Amino acid sequence: MTLPSTYLQMISTVSAEGELTMELVEKPIPELGEDDVLIRVEATPINPSDQGVMFGWASMAKATSSGEGKATKLSVPVSPQGMGVMKARIGQALTVGNEGAGTVVAAGAGDYAQSLMGKVVAVMGGGMYAEYRKAPAMMCLVLKDGHTARDGASCFVNPLTALSMVETMRLEGHSALVHTAAASNLGQMLNRICRADGVELVNVVRKPEQAELLRGMGAKHIVDSSSESFMADLTDAVHATGATLAFDATGGGQLASNILTAMEGAAARTPGAYSIYGSVHHKQVYLYGGLDTSPTVLSRGYGMAWGVGGWLLPNFLAKAGTEVAMRLRARVADELKTTFASHYTDELSLEEALQADVVSRYYAKATGEKFLICPQK
Amino acid sequence: MTLPSTYLQMISTVSAEGELTMELVEKPIPELGEDDVLIRVEATPINPSDQGVMFGWASMAKATSSGEGKATKLSVPVSPQGMGVMKARIGQALTVGNEGAGTVVAAGAGDYAQSLMGKVVAVMGGGMYAEYRKAPAMMCLVLKDGHTARDGASCFVNPLTALSMVETMRLEGHSALVHTAAASNLGQMLNRICRADGVELVNVVRKPEQAELLRGMGAKHIVDSSSESFMADLTDAVHATGATLAFDATGGGQLASNILTAMEGAAARTPGAYSIYGSVHHKQVYLYGGLDTSPTVLSRGYGMAWGVGGWLLPNFLAKAGTEVAMRLRARVADELKTTFASHYTDELSLEEALQADVVSRYYAKATGEKFLICPQK
Repeated sequence: MTLPSTYLQMISTVSAEGELTMELVEKPIPELGEDDVLIRVEATPINPSDQGVMFGWASMAKATSSGEGKATKLSVPVSPQGMGVMKARIGQALTVGNEGAGTVVAAGAGDYAQSLMGKVVAVMGGGMYAEYRKAPAMMCLVLKDGHTARDGASCFVNPLTALSMVETMRLEGHSALVHTAAASNLGQMLNRICRADGVELVNVVRKPEQAELLRGMGAKHIVDSSSESFMADLTDAVHATGATLAFDATGGGQLASNILTAMEGAAARTPGAYSIYGSVHHKQVYLYGGLDTSPTVLSRGYGMAWGVGGWLLPNFLAKAGTEVAMRLRARVADELKTTFASHYTDELSLEEALQADVVSRYYAKATGEKFLICPQK
Repeated sequence: MTLPSTYLQMISTVSAEGELTMELVEKPIPELGEDDVLIRVEATPINPSDQGVMFGWASMAKATSSGEGKATKLSVPVSPQGMGVMKARIGQALTVGNEGAGTVVAAGAGDYAQSLMGKVVAVMGGGMYAEYRKAPAMMCLVLKDGHTARDGASCFVNPLTALSMVETMRLEGHSALVHTAAASNLGQMLNRICRADGVELVNVVRKPEQAELLRGMGAKHIVDSSSESFMADLTDAVHATGATLAFDATGGGQLASNILTAMEGAAARTPGAYSIYGSVHHKQVYLYGGLDTSPTVLSRGYGMAWGVGGWLLPNFLAKAGTEVAMRLRARVADELKTTFASHYTDELSLEEALQADVVSRYYAKATGEKFLICPQK
């Protein structure tokens, strides 16, 4: 097989003048070191964490695109406030796409790199929205025989996030979980993990049909935030499970605060769990996404033993250490088509992903919607 | 000296009907165990943490008082929302007053208890808004010769809180601090501690005269939140000190969020401190008070490595362990009239503290205002 001399790579840039642009740039196929491989990227998902890098704090409702084919360009204005937040990235052409999978089409001279030739591998490390990607052979997760790039495109972000939520629960001394946007791909994975591991999970969804979906998957505790009895239902479920840790994908609004209120209400029903400064056990909500970009509003009616904060997979993995990370990776490869199966709403080419009307379809999509970029399309 | 057979004790009760009442009840002088002492309480401060127990989530603007002298009674309506938060304390007559000092007027047969007879001691443990208080002799901090009950009334809450802020900073891997309501008694103490210990401190105040007060005490970094250049000044001060931990006494509004924004802005100026997910070092704001009872509003424009949460002295001391607690206590006794000196706005009798007009003077007072109850008055 003959390799091309150049490939297309998607970049995102914020200008000092207050505009975010995304486009495809042509780059030379990189030189490979002894232990590197070159992956022909065949499938790479659009995760909310990718969208943070792609779009940052730009005013997405005002996005427009111009040009055609490989010259398609997305332009989005950025408010002065958004510019303040993105100050550190002004003028930098950032590559995007955290994870993906494809076929190894070239390899350095090293034995292990050579052994990957022709294999389908998954990799996490940024810059995956591209036709090709160089990676250290050691970073590649080799998929099992018969598993395609499409099967393995989302090997890392969602699976490791879901597994790390359960790890965090154990590390920080909690015994059950609350999860919001629970009908998402990630939420479905978390359900399968919790059922397999015997961990009680409260699923918070926003629509009756999402509750149905999870019920069909065997989820036990499901609470619909659109229901009038939401707070009572949530408090009951938290009380039944003893959950004192939540992961919230929405980030904004009152949901994190409502979860803490429910935890406090549940503790008030439990003899010995309550002091005059509120419930005794530390209650924590981690915001791991920002589907709702409005401010987080905390009523604070839940005593003094509580925390709300950001949670980011790479930070957790760095803290947990290599051994934990390797254990979680191995489980993902083993259970790729069962526990960690992903479903996609649509498949896009690189240039389609830059068209304003397509962006509006995948931008900040919540539960159940997930898009795949197929750079060879 | 002859002891009375009864004493007056202040209690706070929330009724199921939605009313909070505070009054004085007559109780028999308690029996002393071998290792107990009886303290005639002579001085006990009103701290914000006491007011949480005294008034909880009652609608304080509607407080009224009735009766006279020892029969004075304070009545405050509680909204349905407030009742929800206070569910766990309905019908319980709670004693109030975390700390105070006085003279040991009776003691059990044990040697150590006997050795305290006639001594002036300070104690923390609740129920101090009373004419007398039984306490285990071991719990008493014996004041140095020449120090009065008034000197030692605030031995614990403010001094240990200020010291524990610096301990928390070290334990959690930060190297400088931000403190709000910085002109308070506690803030002044924290300044003296930080100057003595060589810890950089950013003082956030709300008025120019508070800035002057702290400047006169030798504080180096002072930022006035009423100034138009507040955010720029705060970011500069955070950058100069490298502070990634803040303690906020106000709790509500946008101050905590503004501090995190300033920390993020400071990190963006520092090479290597920034990633595409925001600044790398964990940024934390602990809310240790609630001077502003409005919701906490977080803009979240500061990446993913941040946290906001409640902070309570007893919880910290429990986590830090006995050795740390004893070291901090010893320092307080040694530096009682210097580092840990308190200043009081007024001295009240027990019954005065129940009069609605007096309550409105001390309720949720911020910086520079602190009241003392003198139960023997």
